[in-house]
Amino acid sequence: MKTVILIGALGKMGQAALTGLGNQRVITAGRSGEVDHIVDITNEQSIRELYETVGNFDAVVNTVGFCEYANFTEMTEAQWMTTVMSKMMGQINLVRIGQEYIADGGSFTLISGILNVKPIPFAIADATTSGAIDTFVKCVSLEMPRNIRINVVNPTVLSEAWDVYGEMMPGFEPVSGRLVGKAFERSVDGFINGEVIVVDA
Amino acid sequence: MKTVILIGALGKMGQAALTGLGNQRVITAGRSGEVDHIVDITNEQSIRELYETVGNFDAVVNTVGFCEYANFTEMTEAQWMTTVMSKMMGQINLVRIGQEYIADGGSFTLISGILNVKPIPFAIADATTSGAIDTFVKCVSLEMPRNIRINVVNPTVLSEAWDVYGEMMPGFEPVSGRLVGKAFERSVDGFINGEVIVVDA
Repeated sequence: MKTVILIGALGKMGQAALTGLGNQRVITAGRSGEVDHIVDITNEQSIRELYETVGNFDAVVNTVGFCEYANFTEMTEAQWMTTVMSKMMGQINLVRIGQEYIADGGSFTLISGILNVKPIPFAIADATTSGAIDTFVKCVSLEMPRNIRINVVNPTVLSEAWDVYGEMMPGFEPVSGRLVGKAFERSVDGFINGEVIVVDA
Repeated sequence: MKTVILIGALGKMGQAALTGLGNQRVITAGRSGEVDHIVDITNEQSIRELYETVGNFDAVVNTVGFCEYANFTEMTEAQWMTTVMSKMMGQINLVRIGQEYIADGGSFTLISGILNVKPIPFAIADATTSGAIDTFVKCVSLEMPRNIRINVVNPTVLSEAWDVYGEMMPGFEPVSGRLVGKAFERSVDGFINGEVIVVDA
């Protein structure tokens, strides 16, 4: 049994990840609500406090990353930076700071999203930062210390979120949270490293 | 003959690009030195002033993007952000602001770099932002207005820069600036769109 910090535990993606973590000791975290620890991944001090408070852990699973959506010609610098500082730098900082605290042989599992592979309107900032995270994971896996592994789950839209996102994603087929949970499970409980685990239908 | 703004014209990559722009009217730009216009791509106002001063142009070729180099475990948030704000957001802003000014059917050509495809130590921020730019170009090409095209040249190290970078790139084979210039030429003078033009040996 591994001690896993699950960030964004109350969200739909967090709940999907949770279905794959049934054999682990899960410590929940998120921006608000009924979680074990409150954390804001855009705030370095908040990230550090999370890790210091938890103390010993074997894995970090992140399922959050806020993105702004707009046509490229209308997206402002502020919208770009909100996305970059959450989905991209927020996740990079989770790893950068987290590698100081995580157990030997631990693992990080980040989240990207299918829109860098299958672009749709309004999602250029989401796609660009997903591309950055996929690249980051592939490259940084080669230099993680103490046998720490890192992977990223790149899922298509969840069946559980299809009522919200389906209208803007014509031609997409949602996948179940249970299937996406398998990807998180394979990252946390396997030996794969530097993989972009695409979950698509 | 097209009017092309070449950013970073005095650098080695700019000189490489220039070899492919012999049939065009080239307006040079850069942070300093003997160029037609001074521009700092990390400053939105500076970018806007460049475009307003030049007035009419058919193409923007960017060859600059500053990166910090360090082991991942030692790279600071400040080093990450310097890289993100230049190589990634600087280039995105060149396109975001430039699409307001560029001629119908114009083109943008950005620069990434082979290290997201062939990782080496110390280059995680370079690789991550190159991955972001490659993804950005592929996705944003689908929504550029007024038949504006966009591509990115992703070159390996230049023969002309091998004396500086060769030592940190064992097993790499440099390519000539003339060959890289062909990639820029193909982007500016062709009809390709949304392409990552890899130039590698």
